[in-house]
Amino acid sequence: MPAPRPRPGGRTARIRRQVLDAVLAELGEHGYDGLTMDAVAARAGVHRATVYRRWGDVGGLLADVLDAASDDAWQPPDTGSLEGDLAALNREIQDALTAQPPIVAALIAASFRSEKADHAQRRLWEDRYARCEVIVDRAIRRAELPPHTDARPLLIAATAPVYHQLVLLRTPPDPGLPGRAARTAALAASADAFTTPSSAGDT
Amino acid sequence: MPAPRPRPGGRTARIRRQVLDAVLAELGEHGYDGLTMDAVAARAGVHRATVYRRWGDVGGLLADVLDAASDDAWQPPDTGSLEGDLAALNREIQDALTAQPPIVAALIAASFRSEKADHAQRRLWEDRYARCEVIVDRAIRRAELPPHTDARPLLIAATAPVYHQLVLLRTPPDPGLPGRAARTAALAASADAFTTPSSAGDT
Repeated sequence: MPAPRPRPGGRTARIRRQVLDAVLAELGEHGYDGLTMDAVAARAGVHRATVYRRWGDVGGLLADVLDAASDDAWQPPDTGSLEGDLAALNREIQDALTAQPPIVAALIAASFRSEKADHAQRRLWEDRYARCEVIVDRAIRRAELPPHTDARPLLIAATAPVYHQLVLLRTPPDPGLPGRAARTAALAASADAFTTPSSAGDT
Repeated sequence: MPAPRPRPGGRTARIRRQVLDAVLAELGEHGYDGLTMDAVAARAGVHRATVYRRWGDVGGLLADVLDAASDDAWQPPDTGSLEGDLAALNREIQDALTAQPPIVAALIAASFRSEKADHAQRRLWEDRYARCEVIVDRAIRRAELPPHTDARPLLIAATAPVYHQLVLLRTPPDPGLPGRAARTAALAASADAFTTPSSAGDT
């Protein structure tokens, strides 16, 4: 017998889960153009009025899906080396961007259509990149990197080619790309490419 | 008095120019959502029927704008060094992506909406990256790079952070980004990151 969930908001939270699952399913099947409030309500088994009142429009639904995605325990890979961590991270990104149904790709595409989805997508990326900074901290502690290495531009350099090829250039997935992009950034980082000029002198 | 232009197709070419200019102007003012065949025809001073017959729909107009963009004499910067060329290229990309009205950004956004625009955008990127390969050829001739350096992944690595930050992450333009991304790729390239394994041994 499932344990009772007496916390306040339990029913509200359950309805949210049903609705957001329905958004993902509809988005995976029909893409942004086929996503409607009514189809989401019907699939979730929730009153239309509830969906309109709480989420307002399709942009509101997508924004909540994206915000809910940060509400997890995801941590970046920890392989024991900077290049290994970045390569594993890039493989996760490549897998997400090429998954079927193409949920992540559809959410990114939606961020070009809806301002709410745009803002939520940016919040999600900010959250993910912030969590990834530990990769750089660990590499500094292992003396793989200079102490004042700036984490964010290193992480952007490592991951950008995967996004660029799959989301914008839309080339077929290249199994060598995650590792190559990781190696490129790690090589540049160990050659001090991401040490902030103001702090490079005081180590 | 302007010289006559007796080449066949002169009138057709002129109408195409008028229509494509009108697409750019409408796109800059209203974005993809405000772009209509009728507004383009009116602005261009061309019969609606002509526009529908020749371009079919908004996706067809956007695809032709993108295809026309390759029909130019653009060459990548030639500054005398690999890092200088890549930095200058990145500055051109950053300028294009942040220009007002935001034509290039609107065309990229449209490529998520229209399959025809998507294919044309990919053709345009392929054309631009192919032209940029001379940057790597020159660097090899100057002995800045190993002879079997693979041009395309190097160019992707150099330019991807600019696209990633401005098109996907949508962070405010960072004046240091074009140079930093160029330096990162150049450092990695001189450390052999882009030498193909099969050819690395035979130099």
